[in-house]
Amino acid sequence: MNIDEQALHLHKKYAGKITTALRDIPDSKEKLSAYYTPGVAAVSRHIAEHPEQLRDYTWTNNLVAVISDGSAVLGLGNIGPEAAMPVMEGKALLFKHFANIDAVPIVLSVHSVDEIVATIKAIAPSFGGINLEDFASPQCFEIEQRLKQELTIPVMHDDQHGTAVVVLAGLINAMKVVGKKLTDTKIVLIGAGAAGVAVAKLLYLYAKPEIITVDSKGIIGPNRADLTEEKRYLANLHSNYYHSGQLRDALKEADIVIGIARGNMLTREDIAVMNKQPVVFALANPTPEIMPDIAKQAGAAIIATGRSDFPNQVNNALAFPGIFRGALDNHVTRITDEHKMAAAEAIASLIDKPSASFIIPSVFDERLVPTIAKHIQ
Amino acid sequence: MNIDEQALHLHKKYAGKITTALRDIPDSKEKLSAYYTPGVAAVSRHIAEHPEQLRDYTWTNNLVAVISDGSAVLGLGNIGPEAAMPVMEGKALLFKHFANIDAVPIVLSVHSVDEIVATIKAIAPSFGGINLEDFASPQCFEIEQRLKQELTIPVMHDDQHGTAVVVLAGLINAMKVVGKKLTDTKIVLIGAGAAGVAVAKLLYLYAKPEIITVDSKGIIGPNRADLTEEKRYLANLHSNYYHSGQLRDALKEADIVIGIARGNMLTREDIAVMNKQPVVFALANPTPEIMPDIAKQAGAAIIATGRSDFPNQVNNALAFPGIFRGALDNHVTRITDEHKMAAAEAIASLIDKPSASFIIPSVFDERLVPTIAKHIQ
Repeated sequence: MNIDEQALHLHKKYAGKITTALRDIPDSKEKLSAYYTPGVAAVSRHIAEHPEQLRDYTWTNNLVAVISDGSAVLGLGNIGPEAAMPVMEGKALLFKHFANIDAVPIVLSVHSVDEIVATIKAIAPSFGGINLEDFASPQCFEIEQRLKQELTIPVMHDDQHGTAVVVLAGLINAMKVVGKKLTDTKIVLIGAGAAGVAVAKLLYLYAKPEIITVDSKGIIGPNRADLTEEKRYLANLHSNYYHSGQLRDALKEADIVIGIARGNMLTREDIAVMNKQPVVFALANPTPEIMPDIAKQAGAAIIATGRSDFPNQVNNALAFPGIFRGALDNHVTRITDEHKMAAAEAIASLIDKPSASFIIPSVFDERLVPTIAKHIQ
Repeated sequence: MNIDEQALHLHKKYAGKITTALRDIPDSKEKLSAYYTPGVAAVSRHIAEHPEQLRDYTWTNNLVAVISDGSAVLGLGNIGPEAAMPVMEGKALLFKHFANIDAVPIVLSVHSVDEIVATIKAIAPSFGGINLEDFASPQCFEIEQRLKQELTIPVMHDDQHGTAVVVLAGLINAMKVVGKKLTDTKIVLIGAGAAGVAVAKLLYLYAKPEIITVDSKGIIGPNRADLTEEKRYLANLHSNYYHSGQLRDALKEADIVIGIARGNMLTREDIAVMNKQPVVFALANPTPEIMPDIAKQAGAAIIATGRSDFPNQVNNALAFPGIFRGALDNHVTRITDEHKMAAAEAIASLIDKPSASFIIPSVFDERLVPTIAKHIQ
């Protein structure tokens, strides 16, 4: 069986991936009376008087909702809530497996920003945290922004920030290998979607490198007439020299290229115009912007992809389990930029001696979750 | 420890009552690739093409949402979503323990009918069924009605229909004990809230007995000026003779009294004016409308309460696990009145020889769920 057949087979065999279980079995009338009526009324009265103790008496202390409207699922686009469910249930499986967090997949049949925000606010008291997933850009920015302002539980759009944290972690170690300082680098970012914007913001906040973002129309400079609010931000992360031009122009003398765009759109010649020891993060899935062997032949010093079958996998699952584990355990109400930078440093720190083929730890590294979590305070 | 202390102790000890678990452990790169990216994309594409197969590949086939806005929780009233959470999580525990159904508690911070309906519709693709719980009357009627019309998964307000099913089951067996036909009886129903309305509707549909409903202002007759839509319905389930008067007037010659009102509001003298072999269902919790020993002294032939420490407990947990088990297993998209009557007969059928102290089976009777479920087709 190929991977698609194997996935269909396993999903059907087990009829899904998650289930519920009981913390204690109510196998006597006494326990039933304590866990349900009449005893549970005492717990409800207690929480009505002490709302801040909700987490002490209910599963909300360990519970994250994985929410999507199915508008930008993997590389599949706007496939709707039902077709998004296997991905959200998969995310819930990762939460449980890697961080022992109870996660519930919620898919939404509404698609306007106002309806999405209203729905998530309405169900928010049910959860201890909210992981937004696969919402299309640019609506995802406003959705996350408004929910962060209006809710008192942690909210994170993982497509943005999970990716940004792992990219930063990878670059921290990559710079050790090539002997450069991130602050002094020139970075070309290909793709200005949800992940691209978050990567640019976090890198700029962390080290203020020069960042030139390129979309399908070329370099995003401040003179372009078609810019969204986020692209206007991206247009000002670099010097005037790069205010217009195409991808090849941007890549000249660049130290780092980060592709979050589409497969096979970077060539050997593109890499060749970069600075010495070029670092290539080709993160499109399943086909990277440039295959690792070609990038290496073209002179790339370090190559990372989104795939598990090549070295240096940029995988969100490195970040979100530990970030939410820490947020839940430490009663964090908002995940901040400082948390994300600390998480990136924590991930990078797990590799003692980074090398070209080992700048990012394995998702199975058991130190990941506790090491990240203690920095989410 | 008394029951309240025991409940607080157990809830805090286990930090809630439910958790998530994995159907299969993703302990290899291969399984991770099948359950999450890249393999899961094949499952999403498959469901996008065959939406009716969502249930075959995700946990929705075995999943019910237990949803409340916390507006009418147990006897506690409008205590809000957070304080309602322990009750909803308790219901999820019952779903799992009695019917092996995965249930997720969802509490809502919105309270208008329109907002509640919009929110539940928005999250409905996430679930295989919806159990509404502890919504205040009369809004609960419109909420359930609209959701049943607009969704294609089963929706049931358990406070209404779970109670109605178990009351009907109990009365079917009670009539065998006292040797009367339900069709020929005169029933006094005290309380016209969510459960009362549903009990009246189901009993009338099943056997067309004479039903006189009494609320805090006396008999609900068609001439009263303060009637909601539901109370206008109740006003027409009996003959003209009972169009006005107080509780004692209604009880004269009644065969059955069903209290879903408040503790200690029925007296020895009330029971004394009833017909021969009076049947008393005193369902207020925790204090029944009349205590069983007093009702017995006053001549009651059969007494049922909502409590587990007296015989004949009218407990919703007898009905909803089997009803939803059948609905999920048999792909039922709407729970009908016929289903509820069949469920009541199924519950009643589990007692071969009903007696005054045994008209309702134990909630621990393992035949309950399969016997009910096969009638929900």
